[in-house]
Amino acid sequence: MTEKGLLVVISGPSGAGKGTIVKALLQKDPKIRLSVSATTRPPRPGETNGREYYFISREEFEQMTRDGKMLETAEYCGNCYGTPAAPIEQWNSQGSDVILEIEVQGGANVRKTKPASVGIFLLPPSREELERRLKKRGTESGEVICKRLETAERELGEARNYDYTVVNDTVENAVEQICAILRAEKCRTARNAELLERMQKND
Amino acid sequence: MTEKGLLVVISGPSGAGKGTIVKALLQKDPKIRLSVSATTRPPRPGETNGREYYFISREEFEQMTRDGKMLETAEYCGNCYGTPAAPIEQWNSQGSDVILEIEVQGGANVRKTKPASVGIFLLPPSREELERRLKKRGTESGEVICKRLETAERELGEARNYDYTVVNDTVENAVEQICAILRAEKCRTARNAELLERMQKND
Repeated sequence: MTEKGLLVVISGPSGAGKGTIVKALLQKDPKIRLSVSATTRPPRPGETNGREYYFISREEFEQMTRDGKMLETAEYCGNCYGTPAAPIEQWNSQGSDVILEIEVQGGANVRKTKPASVGIFLLPPSREELERRLKKRGTESGEVICKRLETAERELGEARNYDYTVVNDTVENAVEQICAILRAEKCRTARNAELLERMQKND
Repeated sequence: MTEKGLLVVISGPSGAGKGTIVKALLQKDPKIRLSVSATTRPPRPGETNGREYYFISREEFEQMTRDGKMLETAEYCGNCYGTPAAPIEQWNSQGSDVILEIEVQGGANVRKTKPASVGIFLLPPSREELERRLKKRGTESGEVICKRLETAERELGEARNYDYTVVNDTVENAVEQICAILRAEKCRTARNAELLERMQKND
């Protein structure tokens, strides 16, 4: 079983419960690290710089992108999102799995530049529950909710680009599925070439 | 998560401990079924017809093969081995995972005819332990042991055709890895097209 950490891209439509699941996953396994994205969108109430996101200006964002310091960048609802590459590579080489909780558009880009990453698409328990969750968030106007429903529809179509689909029926269940996926992925033959070489070496 | 059972091909060099692991796996999860292979080789002491293998004559074997009732057939050390297809398909459609413990040659054939199967290659904890185990088996002559070592060497080269590589360091560990693999594989997006369709249906 490889000792190198995995880059785990967790995505899914708005309303799938990505944030809740990721928080529970980090609590269950404290060795897992969370990639913190950079964004140009203003912080929501309760969000702290460096915890949910690095909240940076568009100028800073563009400079980092030009310097090749972003693993991917994406625009979503008029704001820029990006993934700083350096911390992920450092943690992976130290053996830590790194979770990248990311919008579908950004996730698809990471999957391309990092084909060894593990893509997990999170689904709400049902269509009805997805709609209920999107309507329930109190911080945005009706127009924004409408745009969200449209976006969720489009995002669901992207699930096929992810290796795994996990249904968020209960937090416990979804977290256990993800832990099983991480464990299984470390046994992938493609990740264990060194181990096989050692076994075949006829000393 | 799909409710259809998986066909799980467990293979590996002689001496990897396939038999022990499979037995422990069946004890841990009684819902898992074991595919019983047919063979023309004579039973070893303690083996029972219909439990370890269906011990059949070469004539019977060839008839079943001609009738298309074998998922694969292979020859190994001068004996024929084959996998009856019908019970596997029946169990899978009933939602049971079916373990196929099989020699590397036969496993490779199943992987071709059943691309949705899950291939697990079992490894002994080390090169030294592999050799020790092959030499320890008391039932065969020196010549047979020598042939076995050669075969194991060739078989190790086939690991790359299997999705996963599990090291049999302890039985408990290896069984837990395999259980994680089965759980993860049921979340594969490719196995959950129906689920995604349901989610996208705008009723």
